Amino acid sequence: MKCDCPSALDCVLRTTVDTVVTEQTVGDIGEFALIDAISKRLRAADPNMVSVGIGDDSAVVTAQGNNVVACVDMLTQGVHFRLDWSSGHDVGRKAAAQNLADIFAMGASPTALLVGLALPRTTPVAWVLDLADGLSQEAESVGVAVVGGDIVRSEHIAISVTALGQLEGRQPIMRSGAKPGDIVAIAGRLGFAAAGLLMLQRGFRSPRALVNAHRVPTPPYALAQAGRHAHAMIDVSDGLISDLGHIARASNVGIEISSNAFAIPDELASAAGAFSADAMDWILTGGEDHAFVATFADGLVVPSGWTIIGTVSDRGVGVWVDGQIRTGGGWDHFSDK
Amino acid sequence: MKCDCPSALDCVLRTTVDTVVTEQTVGDIGEFALIDAISKRLRAADPNMVSVGIGDDSAVVTAQGNNVVACVDMLTQGVHFRLDWSSGHDVGRKAAAQNLADIFAMGASPTALLVGLALPRTTPVAWVLDLADGLSQEAESVGVAVVGGDIVRSEHIAISVTALGQLEGRQPIMRSGAKPGDIVAIAGRLGFAAAGLLMLQRGFRSPRALVNAHRVPTPPYALAQAGRHAHAMIDVSDGLISDLGHIARASNVGIEISSNAFAIPDELASAAGAFSADAMDWILTGGEDHAFVATFADGLVVPSGWTIIGTVSDRGVGVWVDGQIRTGGGWDHFSDK
Repeated sequence: MKCDCPSALDCVLRTTVDTVVTEQTVGDIGEFALIDAISKRLRAADPNMVSVGIGDDSAVVTAQGNNVVACVDMLTQGVHFRLDWSSGHDVGRKAAAQNLADIFAMGASPTALLVGLALPRTTPVAWVLDLADGLSQEAESVGVAVVGGDIVRSEHIAISVTALGQLEGRQPIMRSGAKPGDIVAIAGRLGFAAAGLLMLQRGFRSPRALVNAHRVPTPPYALAQAGRHAHAMIDVSDGLISDLGHIARASNVGIEISSNAFAIPDELASAAGAFSADAMDWILTGGEDHAFVATFADGLVVPSGWTIIGTVSDRGVGVWVDGQIRTGGGWDHFSDK
Repeated sequence: MKCDCPSALDCVLRTTVDTVVTEQTVGDIGEFALIDAISKRLRAADPNMVSVGIGDDSAVVTAQGNNVVACVDMLTQGVHFRLDWSSGHDVGRKAAAQNLADIFAMGASPTALLVGLALPRTTPVAWVLDLADGLSQEAESVGVAVVGGDIVRSEHIAISVTALGQLEGRQPIMRSGAKPGDIVAIAGRLGFAAAGLLMLQRGFRSPRALVNAHRVPTPPYALAQAGRHAHAMIDVSDGLISDLGHIARASNVGIEISSNAFAIPDELASAAGAFSADAMDWILTGGEDHAFVATFADGLVVPSGWTIIGTVSDRGVGVWVDGQIRTGGGWDHFSDK
């Protein structure tokens, strides 16, 4: 240490990520000091929601309605994020956001996050604290906190986020609930993250709106809450056509959407022009924006902020765009594409 | 494929892990076929406990008492398991067992597991299905199932298990509940996993009882349930002294135990003799057996199957063995030891 702190842990707690601590690795300070440092930086949980938080064998979290909604997502270095493209804070927000979106897509309210971190010894402490800040900030944006976790050593960084939620007596919104005659509507951005990823892959760090969308998705949580009367809902993680396909198969229906329903945002239009790409293709097949797509009973009001893009039919199981059946476009982690 | 199956997925579903499928990797069959194959092999969840299982954005699981108990553990290749020492089935059982033990240590009943898998493309499908079988078998041993998860690509295998449980109106058993005058008691084996790991590190595959204890811990779940009137409880994952230290600090008490209280099992005694090791050291500091240690109000009956090893005092915060204060022995993931 190049400071006068009485211990490595004091040093971590005293400093910001920009100063001395940036030189320390998790191997330098050890597991217990790291857990302590992270715990002290995380937002405290609401005691009405979390009766046992970090520090015991398990957390105890509210689950009003006598059931709990739970999902897990993993992010791995080099696959979901690159250290040279995203900050720890970006990765933390992304990890939290993509999992919180799954809770909202069930019509539930989130209650807590648990986080597993697999880290190489050489990982800078500052990066890990930045990650914790990002997780905590995104959780706080929906009123929850990180309430538990596990930290282990590994060769590459892997992050596992578990999100918990409660239904408070409501029924979950399933992928299988779409009915012929339903209106299909979308809330949130599409195609931004896919376009941003292409910019980064080509060596660019702009346009910011696109690149930042790859780094940190911004699911419109409040719009998902406003759509709790939906018959079916999913968050768009793999791509619109791919995720609508999940609803179509689970509900045994056809989903017919119109590309005219989508206004192409200026950012996408100009990036597509510059890179000879197809903006509509980004919108229809780009993943990782975590917009919400849902089907609503015809005659019910589609909530403000949602855009109608099509209808549910009994034409057969599948997704039609402008009358043409479409498949794929989804992301397979193990394919070479 | 060297078979006449109509597709890679059919092949996986048709065959056992010993036949054709052993030649396939997760890169060969892809993410969606892999998820399908795993889902079909997992034990079905009890519909009274799980209203939404694998296949939607999130799972929905019972949480009687309006709260949920939750914990997460990560296991990484080369740190928690080696592919040449443990089968996929072993790793699956271990991953489930160590997390289920945390649920029981809170006085809760488990309700479900969620699993995140980070896998290299070259991972044999057979290994993954064997892992899924191990997870499922251990979960089934306590009446629960795997209800959700995520599979992603990575350079090294990392496994994240989230266990959920319910308290059904009971209070959680905390590390902070120990009181001076309490009786300290233990349920389950100690030192077996540590001894087994040493055997493997020295190139031996026996004695089986020790080596298998490293591969697959067998937490005495039913004994933990029988001890639900404990003031404090923890499962021994880091080592007895280290984990009793967690209770001592959280409860602000002293814990005084006697080494005479421990019968040294024959397996440990003979292995210690052969390797010039100290069997009592394995018992007091060896981790990963996931025995349960608890403190009970004096005068209350310590449940059958538990062994009294000491008392809680107001002598100061710490752990005393035969009158000598002891520290450490715990496992720091990032230390070089």
